[in-house]
Amino acid sequence: MRLATLRTSEGTVAARVEEERYVGLDATDVGALLAMEGWQERAAVDGPAYPLDTELDVVIPRPGKIICVGLNYRSHILEMGRPLPEFPTLFAKFADTLIGPQDDIELSAESDAIDWEAELVVVIGAKIRRASEAEAVAAIAGFTAMNDVSARDWQFRTREWLQGKNFDRSTPLGPVVATPDELPGGVRPALPISATVAGEKMQEADTSDLLFDPVDLVRYVSSMITLRPGDVIATGTPGGVGHARKPPRYLQDGEVVTVEVGGIGRLANVAVRG
Amino acid sequence: MRLATLRTSEGTVAARVEEERYVGLDATDVGALLAMEGWQERAAVDGPAYPLDTELDVVIPRPGKIICVGLNYRSHILEMGRPLPEFPTLFAKFADTLIGPQDDIELSAESDAIDWEAELVVVIGAKIRRASEAEAVAAIAGFTAMNDVSARDWQFRTREWLQGKNFDRSTPLGPVVATPDELPGGVRPALPISATVAGEKMQEADTSDLLFDPVDLVRYVSSMITLRPGDVIATGTPGGVGHARKPPRYLQDGEVVTVEVGGIGRLANVAVRG
Repeated sequence: MRLATLRTSEGTVAARVEEERYVGLDATDVGALLAMEGWQERAAVDGPAYPLDTELDVVIPRPGKIICVGLNYRSHILEMGRPLPEFPTLFAKFADTLIGPQDDIELSAESDAIDWEAELVVVIGAKIRRASEAEAVAAIAGFTAMNDVSARDWQFRTREWLQGKNFDRSTPLGPVVATPDELPGGVRPALPISATVAGEKMQEADTSDLLFDPVDLVRYVSSMITLRPGDVIATGTPGGVGHARKPPRYLQDGEVVTVEVGGIGRLANVAVRG
Repeated sequence: MRLATLRTSEGTVAARVEEERYVGLDATDVGALLAMEGWQERAAVDGPAYPLDTELDVVIPRPGKIICVGLNYRSHILEMGRPLPEFPTLFAKFADTLIGPQDDIELSAESDAIDWEAELVVVIGAKIRRASEAEAVAAIAGFTAMNDVSARDWQFRTREWLQGKNFDRSTPLGPVVATPDELPGGVRPALPISATVAGEKMQEADTSDLLFDPVDLVRYVSSMITLRPGDVIATGTPGGVGHARKPPRYLQDGEVVTVEVGGIGRLANVAVRG
């Protein structure tokens, strides 16, 4: 099953993606759907049809938690000459950063160094704390994609990354949540992931290269705090970000940046200087 | 005006604190009240009386953002021999960490190094982005107190502090939101702040010593992201945390830890090993 949040003339609505149409569901968005008892059954019923060119909203507009993971692609860590870390590095985004899969990325006047980061995102579908392996597997509703857009100048102003990761309307999330049964590898999906800027392929990897895989991450985070339906964990980005290029390469006004994750879809956003 | 969130037999309710009683208001909690148009007028009306021994809930149970500031007491930075930073260091907590002013602090079995941090907290009362000085002043609804309880082992596992700051049910917030007119110094309050553990005074400072004051912090954060009613900014802690003692001193099962901010009140919580 693949779920999206549509923008309609009556507001947003959660929908199931079918071959020829979207099927509207009884929830305002995919986050609200996941918070309902028996969301799998509710997502399977029939409903009003919407054309496939309906505009998409942020797939989960107000996650209770947006937890992001630092360097997590094994080959990239090794090529940087760093040891494989024992624990995942975690930081947070706030929901005001999120935009839909085709919305403009706001290049804030406050930063000259705004960069891309293609990421696979775990979407939580159940309330869990101190999850066992089986509980973690069962709590993964599915996966989506994020461009973890980062203001590198602000990110490195202090020792905490948060302020580089939290500019308003900077961070595309979507286009759909694909359930694990849709994806090769299931809850540990093996999917091509890439980022393209102004037509140039910048990042290209496979999500099977994650050091801490989705099940590991759900277990680790839930050993600390309760995870709830609609919470998301962005699993980190592979090599190829603009900040690591020589010279550095950042998003420019009018450039299209595309993040694509096989089996999930693509985020295609124009960077627009505010 | 001083506002609290009461636990009643019908659920939580926002209330105004008076000499002899609480006056119940038409909102489920202080966060919900602040999100209403004209909250100042709504908070001033008469309503049902509750006795002053009514149990208090987290004053703002589900802030949209909990933004925390690192080292921010000028005298403490200087005594550590560090230069005064140019920018505030920011990190985040999630709402699942919050507990009421007299609830038990959960000492998670996952950590042996759980520490206290007395903090003054700015409470946002209006939606703002890129606030001018006057807009920032007007957007400060008031102030409350937090014990930014921190698992030092987890905090320093990686270079990001987030995972040391986000254990479930670890972080008292309250007891009340006091509006700026109630406090000496107004939106830049000059208040004694302290933490006491098992009867021993551990932290003692004055909030007038903040390097980045509340107005500075509101302006800085709003230059990056929209602030909304009910968002909170914890302004950092003075010297005297357990981790900096030789040998280090952490919270033990059964100990009472008290955080007190003059004009706002006290958080008195028992640390209980889970």
